[in-house]
Amino acid sequence: MQQRAVRTREVLLRAAAEVFDEVGYTRASITSIVDRAGLTAGAVYFHFKSKEGLARAVIHEQAADLQFPQGEPGLQRLIDMTDYLAVEMQQNTLLRAGVRLAVEQNEADLHEYAIYEWWAERFREELVAARARGQLLPSADESAFASLLVAAYTGTQIMSQLSTKRADLPGRISAMWRCLLPALAPADVIRQMTTSATAAEARA
Amino acid sequence: MQQRAVRTREVLLRAAAEVFDEVGYTRASITSIVDRAGLTAGAVYFHFKSKEGLARAVIHEQAADLQFPQGEPGLQRLIDMTDYLAVEMQQNTLLRAGVRLAVEQNEADLHEYAIYEWWAERFREELVAARARGQLLPSADESAFASLLVAAYTGTQIMSQLSTKRADLPGRISAMWRCLLPALAPADVIRQMTTSATAAEARA
Repeated sequence: MQQRAVRTREVLLRAAAEVFDEVGYTRASITSIVDRAGLTAGAVYFHFKSKEGLARAVIHEQAADLQFPQGEPGLQRLIDMTDYLAVEMQQNTLLRAGVRLAVEQNEADLHEYAIYEWWAERFREELVAARARGQLLPSADESAFASLLVAAYTGTQIMSQLSTKRADLPGRISAMWRCLLPALAPADVIRQMTTSATAAEARA
Repeated sequence: MQQRAVRTREVLLRAAAEVFDEVGYTRASITSIVDRAGLTAGAVYFHFKSKEGLARAVIHEQAADLQFPQGEPGLQRLIDMTDYLAVEMQQNTLLRAGVRLAVEQNEADLHEYAIYEWWAERFREELVAARARGQLLPSADESAFASLLVAAYTGTQIMSQLSTKRADLPGRISAMWRCLLPALAPADVIRQMTTSATAAEARA
């Protein structure tokens, strides 16, 4: 695509994310999205075909604006990623809309499972690195744990959104790790890990 | 309520569950629900006021048709409950519709968090019993773990529904327990526990 077409697609994707985030799939209209983007409906049809195409793009590209924490691959970076995601869910509209649509996609009949596998693979890579660094218990299964982490994160996010509009998501993710870490790593490794909760305590 | 009114409400609730399970909140119509129930729209307005009222009732009463496993309260019964729920999700329409609506409720603007707390409390009761029976590690926090279990179950159910229409849900719940148990109980207690997967192995 030419530079201008690429830019138009980006503007549309983000306008769609804003509208999906605010009102959900059913109540979102092409008109409200193109008005938000300052474009015409023709641009949607050219780049995405339909509202459904826009929703699929928002789901698939939900991570496009993320800048994952740097640092050594392994258990600490996995924890840092989940802490970072908890904060991003509060302020990153593309991520939030993509997650919302992925959770509520039955209402839109989308059947998009691949994004869940994508996240599981991202988490699994860190667990494989953690294994190579000797950070995991022999019993811990990297693939199974990565899937569980996606499931637990998804459910935690839903519960946080319903109970506090995600204000307590970082705290819930720290609580999740306090529960999970003893199944994943030996006590001496856990003691070296910093979660957002322990970091907050250290700053206090 | 008189017997007949109670019966009418039951019939409506189950007809609504069937329709919500099949087409979701947005596409469900009062007409399709009362047609399914063999009743008139007046019955809906009398008992539930609106489609929204029906959806709230299906969420709140999602567990009404469950018969939880008997047996000693504690860790084994908690595992048995989650195995039982995995099978019920495949065949119990009221449960399935209630869970679907609870997950996708943003689309319907319902803000119903209480059902998640209700499940967490059910799970916590078993963990408290497990603690009294000496089945839990000193580090395990019953309340935090109960919440995590609801979150992990919710996310696992979503992923199973998208990937296999819930055919693999029992297997995913067994995998979840294999990941979680080492954080919850000492090795000698874990060895005494039976999950649906170990039960299947024992039968083979």
